[in-house]
Amino acid sequence: MHENKYSLVTHAHDHRFLTLRSLQNPQGRTRTGFYLIEGIRHVARAVQCHAPVHSVFVEPSVLSNRFGQKLARRLRNAGVPGVQLLPQLYRELTPATEPQGIGAVLRRHWTPLAGLRASPASLWLAIESIDAPGNLGTIIRTAEATGVGGIFVLGPGTECSNTARSSADPWDPATVRASMGSLFSQKLVRCATHDFINWARNSGVAMVGSSPGGLLNYKALRCRPPAVLLIGGERHGLSDQLIEAADFMVRIPMRGGCDSINVAVAAGVLLFEMANQYARW
Amino acid sequence: MHENKYSLVTHAHDHRFLTLRSLQNPQGRTRTGFYLIEGIRHVARAVQCHAPVHSVFVEPSVLSNRFGQKLARRLRNAGVPGVQLLPQLYRELTPATEPQGIGAVLRRHWTPLAGLRASPASLWLAIESIDAPGNLGTIIRTAEATGVGGIFVLGPGTECSNTARSSADPWDPATVRASMGSLFSQKLVRCATHDFINWARNSGVAMVGSSPGGLLNYKALRCRPPAVLLIGGERHGLSDQLIEAADFMVRIPMRGGCDSINVAVAAGVLLFEMANQYARW
Repeated sequence: MHENKYSLVTHAHDHRFLTLRSLQNPQGRTRTGFYLIEGIRHVARAVQCHAPVHSVFVEPSVLSNRFGQKLARRLRNAGVPGVQLLPQLYRELTPATEPQGIGAVLRRHWTPLAGLRASPASLWLAIESIDAPGNLGTIIRTAEATGVGGIFVLGPGTECSNTARSSADPWDPATVRASMGSLFSQKLVRCATHDFINWARNSGVAMVGSSPGGLLNYKALRCRPPAVLLIGGERHGLSDQLIEAADFMVRIPMRGGCDSINVAVAAGVLLFEMANQYARW
Repeated sequence: MHENKYSLVTHAHDHRFLTLRSLQNPQGRTRTGFYLIEGIRHVARAVQCHAPVHSVFVEPSVLSNRFGQKLARRLRNAGVPGVQLLPQLYRELTPATEPQGIGAVLRRHWTPLAGLRASPASLWLAIESIDAPGNLGTIIRTAEATGVGGIFVLGPGTECSNTARSSADPWDPATVRASMGSLFSQKLVRCATHDFINWARNSGVAMVGSSPGGLLNYKALRCRPPAVLLIGGERHGLSDQLIEAADFMVRIPMRGGCDSINVAVAAGVLLFEMANQYARW
């Protein structure tokens, strides 16, 4: 461990600490274009996925894990700038109950819609107005596990003025944590709903919407890839605009007094079902 | 609205408020045998499921919803005791960002293992060392949606001394919220792992474990009901004791750099797959 080669930040008023802390808020992330990750696994996956690591921050007294120490050394030797923080300052940068002593600042990256190609057997995901950052992160994790080609984030929180409802921020610390590193490997596309619909139609991508009122039992869906699964928010489900545009509307039949399941579970059940079908194409 | 027939609690030192607040902690729940729910939907489902409602607490200034007001009146007319709380006291009893003005105290109920019968086409769930209350609640919600006969909660946090790892508390406020009322309709069985294994064997219930290292792709599982799905915790998965006892060990194949998905998503994918197969029996 030679993290002391990074200069030590000792004051909560130090502008370097203030900049790091500001990334916990949407305003700070929007102003700078950066977001923050914490933990050995997350930083390691970011490096592995060639995510754009801007800088690192360490707290050597808790970075006792050998792999974590090696990771910090490797980043420093690669010329990645960084700071060392006092324990109490480091702790302010993560909601983790057991901070791991290494974190990083990454550049947010949206994949542009223009030029996005859908290969013949590809599966895509579009999400609209997901409220809970934890649900969004869990969905991003499932998207990687099912080989999704990219995730469309629709809604005005995504700075599109012509759609009605906002989604949680993919770069929110709770989303990043729940995605368990899958965020770094996924193409995220932010666009207006009508631009997304045009892209799907022009690319020959079938739109599969899901809703408790969907006509088709999801197990009976036979839809040629490429296809995109449309997932609506926890409160109101999909917008009328997407329901009208969908080529298929599926439902997950439920028993008991249940009229709904958690949105991340629903996305998981549908994505795995579609991925299993498309594995045969 | 005549909630003012309930006597008003105005002080944070009032023993009635202190008792309510104590139910947010495991110690308070264990000492009293009660737990706390909040919100119109939750209270309505508790009543609908004939859950043992011990008392209610209301805050009329935010209980503007007509259905909620009717529900409060119905409970009061049925002789359910209750208190009215000042807004600032009420708010302390719920983590909800938008408190709804009605909550209830319910008696915890564990279904005894003795006498539990497995019908021929039934599907069961056993969970071991689930850490996050939100994940546990989400799993309970999925269990209802898939018609699960009952949920075995295994581990020492469940006051069994001979198993190794604890699970989150089903009556934790975060579990209750995430279960969206499914908690009230589910049989919860708390027992030692070896008693559970004996029950499954003696009842002819096939044990299906899940693990990233499972031999069988879950889509290839052909297992006659009755069956019980075994779900391990977020960190370490299933214990060796359950893996050795399992009749089948399935895995959910994943793509990308993913070696795991969220435990509640995994439980959902597997429960819906099994429920769909068993619907044909």
